[in-house]
Amino acid sequence: MALYVYKFGGTSVGSVERIKSVAEKVKKAHDSGDQIVVVVSAMSGETNRLVALAKEMQTQPTEREMDVLLSTGEQVTISLLCMALHNLGCDASSYTGGQVKILTDSSHTKARIREIEDAKIHADLKDRKVVVVAGFQGVDEYGNITTLGRGGSDTTAVALAAALKADECQIYTDVDGVYTTDPRVEPKARRLDHITFEEMLEMASLGSKVLQIRSVEFAGKYNVALRVLSSFKEGCGTLITYKESQMESALISGIAFNRDEAKLTITGVPDLPGVAFKILSPVADANIEVDMIVQNIADDATTDFTFTVHRNDYQRAKTSLEKTCAELGARKVTGDDTIVKVSIVGVGMRSHAGIASTMFKTLAAEGINIRMISTSEIKISVVVDEKYLELAVRALHAAFKLDQGVES
Amino acid sequence: MALYVYKFGGTSVGSVERIKSVAEKVKKAHDSGDQIVVVVSAMSGETNRLVALAKEMQTQPTEREMDVLLSTGEQVTISLLCMALHNLGCDASSYTGGQVKILTDSSHTKARIREIEDAKIHADLKDRKVVVVAGFQGVDEYGNITTLGRGGSDTTAVALAAALKADECQIYTDVDGVYTTDPRVEPKARRLDHITFEEMLEMASLGSKVLQIRSVEFAGKYNVALRVLSSFKEGCGTLITYKESQMESALISGIAFNRDEAKLTITGVPDLPGVAFKILSPVADANIEVDMIVQNIADDATTDFTFTVHRNDYQRAKTSLEKTCAELGARKVTGDDTIVKVSIVGVGMRSHAGIASTMFKTLAAEGINIRMISTSEIKISVVVDEKYLELAVRALHAAFKLDQGVES
Repeated sequence: MALYVYKFGGTSVGSVERIKSVAEKVKKAHDSGDQIVVVVSAMSGETNRLVALAKEMQTQPTEREMDVLLSTGEQVTISLLCMALHNLGCDASSYTGGQVKILTDSSHTKARIREIEDAKIHADLKDRKVVVVAGFQGVDEYGNITTLGRGGSDTTAVALAAALKADECQIYTDVDGVYTTDPRVEPKARRLDHITFEEMLEMASLGSKVLQIRSVEFAGKYNVALRVLSSFKEGCGTLITYKESQMESALISGIAFNRDEAKLTITGVPDLPGVAFKILSPVADANIEVDMIVQNIADDATTDFTFTVHRNDYQRAKTSLEKTCAELGARKVTGDDTIVKVSIVGVGMRSHAGIASTMFKTLAAEGINIRMISTSEIKISVVVDEKYLELAVRALHAAFKLDQGVES
Repeated sequence: MALYVYKFGGTSVGSVERIKSVAEKVKKAHDSGDQIVVVVSAMSGETNRLVALAKEMQTQPTEREMDVLLSTGEQVTISLLCMALHNLGCDASSYTGGQVKILTDSSHTKARIREIEDAKIHADLKDRKVVVVAGFQGVDEYGNITTLGRGGSDTTAVALAAALKADECQIYTDVDGVYTTDPRVEPKARRLDHITFEEMLEMASLGSKVLQIRSVEFAGKYNVALRVLSSFKEGCGTLITYKESQMESALISGIAFNRDEAKLTITGVPDLPGVAFKILSPVADANIEVDMIVQNIADDATTDFTFTVHRNDYQRAKTSLEKTCAELGARKVTGDDTIVKVSIVGVGMRSHAGIASTMFKTLAAEGINIRMISTSEIKISVVVDEKYLELAVRALHAAFKLDQGVES
């Protein structure tokens, strides 16, 4: 007998029929003898409907009241799912975040979970009930309703799995797992049976948006085995754990990419201590997020400094940098907002040399010029012209034999 | 400085515009220095939408889950009203039934209020905040969400007014008060400035459905001054208290009537002890509610027994009574499902003789035959043929000078 936490997102519970189909899936698992806790989101469309109502009341709706409003979305789903389960003869009880209770801090609309009381859930599970919990919401120490922010239902599921010491937390979504890369770019992309937390974090932050980063961090922190599966088709999905793949040959797990990148370079900066701070702090003050940062020492006691930002922030960052350029007596500012970032991710990289050179050789063979390079323990990112994105992804996918399943 | 509890029903908060107009009304009262607690229902249509969703899940939805579902309706309204108040620069906080908390028993879908914690509300009022409370809902001792059943928001308002020792509980609705009779039958019907709890109970149970009976009983029990007003037009409405009208001449407060009545008579019943029980218990067992009951002793040691039921129950009651007739050896069963009940109500009746005879004389003068009579301390009801309903109401309205305001 195992204890599972299932999470179904808005699309998976988006209609009466889909809620009924979720109920059938849950009942089947429950009938097989496992203990099941289900976390659900609001029916798709419901949150947007409520937000629109709020905005008609107040241009900038009060956050405390926004949480009172939005939390009704999941509350509707938990009751409907329980009714659907009862209709199948499966005993089940619903709980709002406040009823569980999921204690959070008081940061309305983006609260953090502090503690979960598991007594009621354990009692229900012992009575062979399915427990259905509203995702995304909690309650602060004063009894105010809070919400965890976008994607918060994933976090609720992982936090519950950690608190209940569940065997696995299964996130049901509209994709059937994590892929070696985006199948829209490389049709040969393959679903991974297994990936580590660290790889998943690098994949997610680099653009493969299957899971909310925060829930992956949370799962990693509390060592919760996390599985991504499809609500709509059978399959074992992708398991995310600390364990590295058994097969020595799986050097690289996947190829991630970001389309909306732009790069800025300031050249001929007098190379003095603190120059990086002087260049980047005005950018940070303008609330612009900087991604990759590369600094080259030139030979004339000056330095060249390059960084990337989101393409939407390109003009603002350039204006700020030109001001800094004048202040520092640097030579000039150049930029390019037609670049992309392509990254290979894999824990195998740690123990295997030659991966970077395979990557560079592959890109060179296709005539793709690398404009920037940045590396970490388990990832190598390169910046290339956006016209090469698809070619680069496919070439690397082939070079690292990602289309050939080695795991299962 | 007075403390008021306002209650706005579903129609009064049925759209974004109406919620905004409620907010303006509340802000105006609050600005004048009074302390305001507002109880709101779900936006009109919302409860029906949720019930329809539930019925798609389960033919007979589980009551506990129904309460979880339906309570979201008021939760949406409290947050939207607070946002609208904030938008007007008026400080306000929302509370669900569970947050207040309004402790009830565990009878899901028809819970009874046991106790109200008033600490949070008093603290907010002291801080010059408007307090907005979700009507219709509470929480049981185990933390389960409960609802009070149809019209429960009125009960919430009255219970809060009692707990907070409010100066007045004002129920805003789509009529502007309690009338001497239904203005659709007698256009000269006049709004009463004042009526007693007892009269209101008789008026309500007899068909003037302005307020939920339960909330009037509650207000009477805890001596809460209750006022019915219109959400949509100005006016002082009708005040309901224990105090009797000051004016000696106000013998009768109003004329109520019930259209959907039917009467059944069993004649020639051997007059033995227990005969009333033998006749009525099969009817009660069939779950049919009996209203008026009249028994006449005939001169041949047999008795005639007549009672009224709702017209929808007429055929079932008749079948049951015919079986009883055979068992008791009674003569025969007759019935009529084209009758109505007309009642005059007024506390003045207690101390004034001659009211019944005025009533009977008035009806006789119009050629209206009285088929049954039943009296209580503050009301006289007669059963007449349904074709006389409007004539009877108008004749009595004129006879008791109800079109002539004597109070204000």
